[in-house]
Amino acid sequence: MSAHSVFTAYLLAAAALPAGVHSQTAQRLGYAADAKLLIIHADDLAVAHAQDRASFEALSRGAVSSASIMVPCPWLTEVAEYAKAHPEADLGLHLTLTSEWKTYRWGPVAPRDQVASLLDPHGYLFPDAGEAARHIKPEEAEREVRAQVETALRMGIRPTHLDSHMGVLFSKPALVAVYANVAHEYHLPFLMLKVPGVPPEMYSALKPTDVILDHIFMAAPPLKPEDWLSYYTHILKTLPAGVSELIVHLAYDDDEMKAVTTNHPDYDGAWRQRDFNVVTSPEFRQALEENHIKLITWRELGKLLPRP
Amino acid sequence: MSAHSVFTAYLLAAAALPAGVHSQTAQRLGYAADAKLLIIHADDLAVAHAQDRASFEALSRGAVSSASIMVPCPWLTEVAEYAKAHPEADLGLHLTLTSEWKTYRWGPVAPRDQVASLLDPHGYLFPDAGEAARHIKPEEAEREVRAQVETALRMGIRPTHLDSHMGVLFSKPALVAVYANVAHEYHLPFLMLKVPGVPPEMYSALKPTDVILDHIFMAAPPLKPEDWLSYYTHILKTLPAGVSELIVHLAYDDDEMKAVTTNHPDYDGAWRQRDFNVVTSPEFRQALEENHIKLITWRELGKLLPRP
Repeated sequence: MSAHSVFTAYLLAAAALPAGVHSQTAQRLGYAADAKLLIIHADDLAVAHAQDRASFEALSRGAVSSASIMVPCPWLTEVAEYAKAHPEADLGLHLTLTSEWKTYRWGPVAPRDQVASLLDPHGYLFPDAGEAARHIKPEEAEREVRAQVETALRMGIRPTHLDSHMGVLFSKPALVAVYANVAHEYHLPFLMLKVPGVPPEMYSALKPTDVILDHIFMAAPPLKPEDWLSYYTHILKTLPAGVSELIVHLAYDDDEMKAVTTNHPDYDGAWRQRDFNVVTSPEFRQALEENHIKLITWRELGKLLPRP
Repeated sequence: MSAHSVFTAYLLAAAALPAGVHSQTAQRLGYAADAKLLIIHADDLAVAHAQDRASFEALSRGAVSSASIMVPCPWLTEVAEYAKAHPEADLGLHLTLTSEWKTYRWGPVAPRDQVASLLDPHGYLFPDAGEAARHIKPEEAEREVRAQVETALRMGIRPTHLDSHMGVLFSKPALVAVYANVAHEYHLPFLMLKVPGVPPEMYSALKPTDVILDHIFMAAPPLKPEDWLSYYTHILKTLPAGVSELIVHLAYDDDEMKAVTTNHPDYDGAWRQRDFNVVTSPEFRQALEENHIKLITWRELGKLLPRP
């Protein structure tokens, strides 16, 4: 199974949730049951400067309401400076157990010999989410995830939430448990749906007070460039009631980004530039307004958790 | 002492070597005693895509005759692919014990807990060469250096030589010994001068068969942008006989490089673009020809070593 298809399969199942099987999260937030609440979420901050620049621009324009950061990536210091200068920005940690590009790689934050099951033969994180999920020992995933949270905190980042790069931590019960346990320990909300048909042991580490979303949407192959705007505006026009997240990947398609994503058309620089162009377009903004969609943040969702 | 000034002081001392105190390396190579032999050497490959692109371009044009690679840096895979596609390219390892930029950082290759004396509080290599030299335990430097060589070999790089990023391995006898010992073990020549006035214990790990250069030149602050071409052509016009290395730092001054080198005017993107412009200029090429300078490589120097 390819890197993105694990996550995509999960998301598509999520997107197919029947109307009415929702989480009550909107009501817990104080909204009417028919409110359409949406987090527009930029993934992959710190992966590249072009990704950071485009994501910071979209955050500052309010084109996205939230974003998450890849701690093992080289541009973390740039993002930490942004986070400290913009304490209002809704920034979580995009817990990272894969390094998926061909020319440009990163390793773990924890000592390599303590997380050996996470590494390819060159000492980088595995490129493929399926391969990662098969090889990773849950106790080593937990060590790495904890090291990522601690590194972010030490650098002055105050994360509003957790999620999982390429869905590795959504892929099997033992890894979902790592994800939920670390989130509980740090009192952070985390991206999670309850999907009909998914075996219940997938959710066994969850607590009744956890914040559950109703729907997630994310562009996935084989979406064609000419269909980009209509794909996104269709999501907005048909957005169900409840709490949804729309995941986007924002970057400028410059020399750096083309080189990072070389030989990988899915989610490459051009893909990310199209995402940026759509979320900052007047048509997208108009569709948000016309469909009475209220943008929310993970910080608001975090307020639903019991006080530590 | 600032990051570059340790190395710079060393180099300036080297550049001031009196004529005639030379190494016999030219004669060992079969050249006349008055031959002017020069390695034009691009440092810092793998640090950034803009650095790689400019350095590959200069290598392919013959504007530089050699280059070296920073193994802990994110773009190593890109450089390894280049090295495998260009087995004739003269590529060494720029052994790296510092991570000097402000927005963009890297850690060690060895497990962090085995090289703790190399790390700043965020788990990256120290930004400053002086600080690194003070804190680093030689046995941990050796562990990291060895891990860098092994990683390069595993990725298919066949290094022609070793040198030291920001001169950390030239800074005290115990670190020079690490450098020389690892080079001896892998049968590689390594950048080394014998500078009058330097305490002899600095050289105690060297062997009589080691290849010693006569002169090293490198642009250093406070060189002004308008003096760039004349600085380099002056070096060529006055190049002494013997084996010299001219160290340059080549990059395109694009968004990535500006961001990597932000708030650090010395050796920033603009500096590296000027270096690229000079070494690829007709004036520079003409000065090489008019002054009868023969470009050589580290591969040729390596042939002087005893067969393993």
